[in-house]
Amino acid sequence: MILVVALNPALDITHQVAGADWAGVNRPFAVSARAGGKGLNVARALHALGQDVTLAGLAGGPSGEALLAGLEGTGIETALTPIVGDTRRTFAVVDTVRGRTALFNEPGPVISGEEYRRFCVLYADRLAYAAAVVLSGSLPGGVPADAYAGLIAAAAAAGVPAVLDTSGIALSLGAAAGPTLVKPNLAELATAAGRSLGSDEQPDLAAVDQAARSLTAGASTAVVSLGAHGAVAAGPDGSWRGRPPAPVTGNPTGAGDALVAGLAAGIVLRRPWPDLLRHAVALGTAAAGAAVAGEVSMPEYERLVPQVRLDRLAPAAGSARSREAEPV
Amino acid sequence: MILVVALNPALDITHQVAGADWAGVNRPFAVSARAGGKGLNVARALHALGQDVTLAGLAGGPSGEALLAGLEGTGIETALTPIVGDTRRTFAVVDTVRGRTALFNEPGPVISGEEYRRFCVLYADRLAYAAAVVLSGSLPGGVPADAYAGLIAAAAAAGVPAVLDTSGIALSLGAAAGPTLVKPNLAELATAAGRSLGSDEQPDLAAVDQAARSLTAGASTAVVSLGAHGAVAAGPDGSWRGRPPAPVTGNPTGAGDALVAGLAAGIVLRRPWPDLLRHAVALGTAAAGAAVAGEVSMPEYERLVPQVRLDRLAPAAGSARSREAEPV
Repeated sequence: MILVVALNPALDITHQVAGADWAGVNRPFAVSARAGGKGLNVARALHALGQDVTLAGLAGGPSGEALLAGLEGTGIETALTPIVGDTRRTFAVVDTVRGRTALFNEPGPVISGEEYRRFCVLYADRLAYAAAVVLSGSLPGGVPADAYAGLIAAAAAAGVPAVLDTSGIALSLGAAAGPTLVKPNLAELATAAGRSLGSDEQPDLAAVDQAARSLTAGASTAVVSLGAHGAVAAGPDGSWRGRPPAPVTGNPTGAGDALVAGLAAGIVLRRPWPDLLRHAVALGTAAAGAAVAGEVSMPEYERLVPQVRLDRLAPAAGSARSREAEPV
Repeated sequence: MILVVALNPALDITHQVAGADWAGVNRPFAVSARAGGKGLNVARALHALGQDVTLAGLAGGPSGEALLAGLEGTGIETALTPIVGDTRRTFAVVDTVRGRTALFNEPGPVISGEEYRRFCVLYADRLAYAAAVVLSGSLPGGVPADAYAGLIAAAAAAGVPAVLDTSGIALSLGAAAGPTLVKPNLAELATAAGRSLGSDEQPDLAAVDQAARSLTAGASTAVVSLGAHGAVAAGPDGSWRGRPPAPVTGNPTGAGDALVAGLAAGIVLRRPWPDLLRHAVALGTAAAGAAVAGEVSMPEYERLVPQVRLDRLAPAAGSARSREAEPV
């Protein structure tokens, strides 16, 4: 079982409107409400891959109940700790005439110390049955900034590999705790490194490799997602860039979360590097084309796996020299 | 006790944003969720007047639970019939920089025949304890178009006066069933009459009087709300226009619903016409200035009562002649 932790999940509400009136009354022609947030997307993609998934985290109030109801029958086991506050909502207005989307993200609940302690007890309990743990998304208010560091230490003590996908101070503090793998995107890594690293389309590969290694002090593998342009992996086993056969634009959130799911599945399946990166980039690329985050077409994934192009950036640890990319 | 029926209540979610980006990600600085819909506003205004209120209607799903939770501790007794579907949400984006509001109204649940029958049993039960019943708002899907006619007939059989505030075919069919009082606004009455009746600011008073009397075939009193410009009452006791000392713009929804609350309270208190209209117009005007629909300042209401200007439009039934307005 892979344990996915979503400390700040969301109820994603989407209204589809044919031409929105931003100063008047609108009657959406389609309405959906769905369990969302990065952890939920990772859990869905892992389930699509055939992995057993347990979702842990914090949920409460009517939005939390709606989130739980939305997960019934999906095959994802839930072990969410109840909270007094109301799980945050995200509200998307999709204007199908103008072809643009407005997103309104609520700040979310504030978690009490007692609620977070109860989550930690449940987490430690489920960790005993986990082949890997994925820590995904932002921290809600009230949870300490070094929460992921503590959860990573607990996973390490239990001998369970941990994958971290977050941003800001939670990323810096979590990465320093030595997770097996950390997955920032280029902007998140640039913020942590305090310098520009180029763009997804034209990353400064030597700088990305260096910043990725600095993030974890060389102890872990960092996989840096590059949106539609694949990802760079840098760690003790070397550095590679994985690229889809063609950039796929579409759902960047879903692509990043599916990449994380692919990395976690690769760890559990003990895939060697850079084959692990190849499969994860294929999964992320397959998800980018999906309309809904976390949904992945398995035939598309399997079609893409052999087409992912891998370039070696650096040899295994011991050589700090960053070389020009060369095909593997 | 006054029984307020809300067959299609809503969970009103409001996001306040300082300058909305309709093609990007927004982080609202204030979020609220509140039990809403016309019936809820009427119930709140009646409670503010000191009346005992029981709220009947249909609610279900996570939004229905949030609605119920929002009514706890308000002093409004609830007798809502549970439904399988999810109570509709309305979503308001208030752009505090541009000073405009976008409203997104979900279509709402579809009610099963069995659910509506269970509501009718509960309604008949509570009717036995009611001094008046208020039927307010739209009908959800699945409920027959003549539902209000049936509920009005049941009230009449129980000797309970009924006040109807709805629109479209539900208004026409309901008004024909002979409620004690029906409250269309000018646009709703014009639609029912199939002709123009002027504007809130300059209503064609003779045409309004005639259309109001036609709506109920002369059996009931019709009170036609004119937004910030008061209301016209036309019925067996005569026709009057009630005007606030100065037009109050602000919250037209709250004003109309408070007017209904004032009319229902007046019936229960056996206020004679046109004093009943005077009090109701004062309450509606006091509510128009409130930030939140259904909230009414009682001192403001009491200040306004003697200031409402009443003009007689027609003598009591028997004379069909419509005269020029004359002060009472």
